[in-house]
Amino acid sequence: MIKKILVRLDNRYYWQEGDLHTNYGVVKKADLEKAESSVKSHEDKEFLMFDANFADQFEKIKRGPAIMIPKDIGVILTNTGIGKDSVVVDAGTGCGVTASFLANFVKKVVTYEVNKDFFNLAKKNFEFLELKNVEQKNKDVYEGIEEKDLDLVVFDLPEPWRAVGHAYKSLKSGRFLVSYLPTITQVGGLVSSSEGFLHEKTIEVLEREWHVGGKKVRPKSQMIAHTGFLVFLRKI
Amino acid sequence: MIKKILVRLDNRYYWQEGDLHTNYGVVKKADLEKAESSVKSHEDKEFLMFDANFADQFEKIKRGPAIMIPKDIGVILTNTGIGKDSVVVDAGTGCGVTASFLANFVKKVVTYEVNKDFFNLAKKNFEFLELKNVEQKNKDVYEGIEEKDLDLVVFDLPEPWRAVGHAYKSLKSGRFLVSYLPTITQVGGLVSSSEGFLHEKTIEVLEREWHVGGKKVRPKSQMIAHTGFLVFLRKI
Amino acid sequence: MIKKILVRLDNRYYWQEGDLHTNYGVVKKADLEKAESSVKSHEDKEFLMFDANFADQFEKIKRGPAIMIPKDIGVILTNTGIGKDSVVVDAGTGCGVTASFLANFVKKVVTYEVNKDFFNLAKKNFEFLELKNVEQKNKDVYEGIEEKDLDLVVFDLPEPWRAVGHAYKSLKSGRFLVSYLPTITQVGGLVSSSEGFLHEKTIEVLEREWHVGGKKVRPKSQMIAHTGFLVFLRKI
Amino acid sequence: MIKKILVRLDNRYYWQEGDLHTNYGVVKKADLEKAESSVKSHEDKEFLMFDANFADQFEKIKRGPAIMIPKDIGVILTNTGIGKDSVVVDAGTGCGVTASFLANFVKKVVTYEVNKDFFNLAKKNFEFLELKNVEQKNKDVYEGIEEKDLDLVVFDLPEPWRAVGHAYKSLKSGRFLVSYLPTITQVGGLVSSSEGFLHEKTIEVLEREWHVGGKKVRPKSQMIAHTGFLVFLRKI
Repeated sequence: MIKKILVRLDNRYYWQEGDLHTNYGVVKKADLEKAESSVKSHEDKEFLMFDANFADQFEKIKRGPAIMIPKDIGVILTNTGIGKDSVVVDAGTGCGVTASFLANFVKKVVTYEVNKDFFNLAKKNFEFLELKNVEQKNKDVYEGIEEKDLDLVVFDLPEPWRAVGHAYKSLKSGRFLVSYLPTITQVGGLVSSSEGFLHEKTIEVLEREWHVGGKKVRPKSQMIAHTGFLVFLRKI
Repeated sequence: MIKKILVRLDNRYYWQEGDLHTNYGVVKKADLEKAESSVKSHEDKEFLMFDANFADQFEKIKRGPAIMIPKDIGVILTNTGIGKDSVVVDAGTGCGVTASFLANFVKKVVTYEVNKDFFNLAKKNFEFLELKNVEQKNKDVYEGIEEKDLDLVVFDLPEPWRAVGHAYKSLKSGRFLVSYLPTITQVGGLVSSSEGFLHEKTIEVLEREWHVGGKKVRPKSQMIAHTGFLVFLRKI
Repeated sequence: MIKKILVRLDNRYYWQEGDLHTNYGVVKKADLEKAESSVKSHEDKEFLMFDANFADQFEKIKRGPAIMIPKDIGVILTNTGIGKDSVVVDAGTGCGVTASFLANFVKKVVTYEVNKDFFNLAKKNFEFLELKNVEQKNKDVYEGIEEKDLDLVVFDLPEPWRAVGHAYKSLKSGRFLVSYLPTITQVGGLVSSSEGFLHEKTIEVLEREWHVGGKKVRPKSQMIAHTGFLVFLRKI
Repeated sequence: MIKKILVRLDNRYYWQEGDLHTNYGVVKKADLEKAESSVKSHEDKEFLMFDANFADQFEKIKRGPAIMIPKDIGVILTNTGIGKDSVVVDAGTGCGVTASFLANFVKKVVTYEVNKDFFNLAKKNFEFLELKNVEQKNKDVYEGIEEKDLDLVVFDLPEPWRAVGHAYKSLKSGRFLVSYLPTITQVGGLVSSSEGFLHEKTIEVLEREWHVGGKKVRPKSQMIAHTGFLVFLRKI
């Protein structure tokens, strides 16, 4: 586990691993180990130092393609009534982003992934993040969910309608299946196949960043306009 | 604690408390107690029944004026590296919304509120939500923060710059002070007074809901366009 | 044609037509006729007076249900290369909103409407707005478009794919068919039936209003989250 | 004036000017001149051909830094009551984008620019666009506006409050001064200096583009999150 991260005043982050080669010059490993709140490169540029936290570690994990990002996982946490004592199923695992974030806040996460390569990638990521409460299954969630009495099921799957019935059987009454879907076409397909569930809401979450500096206060010029839609289905 | 909630197919929710008087007729307490997954009113309209969860309970708490909503608290959870073992300070308490949500996910929340009426309102809300890990202080956070080694400080205060120094002293290195601010004018004021912190980002989070029904798939006509800005300051 | 409008400082507008009964008291017709830049009600409340312009007149026309609003018509004007010398076909007319706005900026608008009630409603609106360059046809645009060499065709129709071929034959090379569609389902249907056209872009336009007053500068709490999608098809 | 544009199916546009060198091979001038609706490169890749319109020409003009874009100019056209007979003042000219778009729709545009380099750049752009109804003034609008009875004044200036009084004297009653401002700080400064005007509204306009292809219908991943705020001030 990485202990320290470094940051330049332009908000560019670096992780402390041996000698650090940057656009601002090299920071020596020996200097890093002695330093506390800041350190200088051989070009005499200063780097601030922070204790690394979970979100920092998270930035370092290996990624696959399109994934849910913190804003999306945040609204799942606060809209489904789960908490520290909850047990959750996640499918498919992918590189493990959703499972990792959930595991940081709930009691236990069981995560399904049929693809062996992704299963192995996620395994490394969970180890790197030192998560003890994630159970990985190299199984096809379209075939079934083995857990019962779940507090939440999260799907990041291309065809979630194939596993809706499994989620129904595994959830407690009143609990949610949340499906993350890149296209609106998939949303329509899922909602029309969600028998036994109340379609509580389908939302998109947009995060807009501002530049704040002296007299120049304005939204940043570019933003991520879309990651995916979140469909909240509640077991009747 | 309420055990069951009821819902009509138009997504209107009701809570089970004695006889329930609705636009769809009266649901008798005796019928509610016998029912399992649905119940009918005296006008023969059906209501679905769910086990209530934390988010449902939350909807029932007494509110004051403008408050952070789940989307905002969600991004705080997933952007600050906190988790189940974290200790957090929140100020001002208000009606207790932020503290309640945080307490559901972290180890302990200490919450400051100078106003006695809000303090008492929040007390009832925490009891109603059966939260055991919230400590309330009827103190002015502008005067100081007594805790040390905190993993997160959240401010929902009109003049957060008056308590930035206190937050600095109470936070661990690399940890965040997040300030929720309705006006952009306040954002400018805070960022220019945040010595000792890195201004990591200022964002607004927008949640846009979709209507999904058969062939009619479109965004809903109205949305909440603004709750507040979130300023993320990281202790150097 | 109305010559003057009145406004209270809370941005509520009124139109001068005989005695004016408002929440701030009655403004007498005789007083209005003598007044120049302001007038008082019998409760001694002051109203500002403006010369009315096209956009003001427009606010007074009789409306049917869902209609394109100025933000949508604005991006059509500036994204299709039309100008003062352009000839445009619009269908269906509805209450005449789109045709009126276009007529204010281009040489001529021919507008199709199969429904006789809407045809008559729009007729009154065009007369009220004193527009001389709108030609109304009480015909079904799904049956055909009689004009040739058009600079733009705008559809506000439930099934635009039924008239895409007609638009193709009536447009000049390189010119646009713009279709306004409330649901994303319709967008998919149109784009997959747009042979002979390049699908240049499909957009939604969002207008977000700000409250600006002294220290309180923030986005307004509510906004219109959706009117319709605009599909820009360009004739090859 | 360019007569034809070419486009590849990936929506990349080219303009016909001599031999055309592209990633898809060279298109010979001789081939272009003979072609009608399509032409092939020496690599046998097909290009579609369109008649060029005003918006196409516009894409070819030389630009300076931050400028209003079509979405912003569109809402000015449809929210200020101007039309084909209107006379408008624009300041500063910059590279001439705003003046060009307005000139395409109104009777006359007078445009002020104190910087001689921008004045000359805009001159070339107006000539390229063959606009006959734009009058350029190489003058400082902070010193005054010489025109009277204007239907609209548009400011794209760093300190618009220095010219608010000039706009007031030059506008007809009930007409608008619209100011385009990148930062919210400037918005506050202008609104608090707008004596004699009603602050009708301050808005931002967001354009969100969708990917529409078969089953894959979703918003594009990136968008322009900010160009500028539009402040609408109405002369009392």
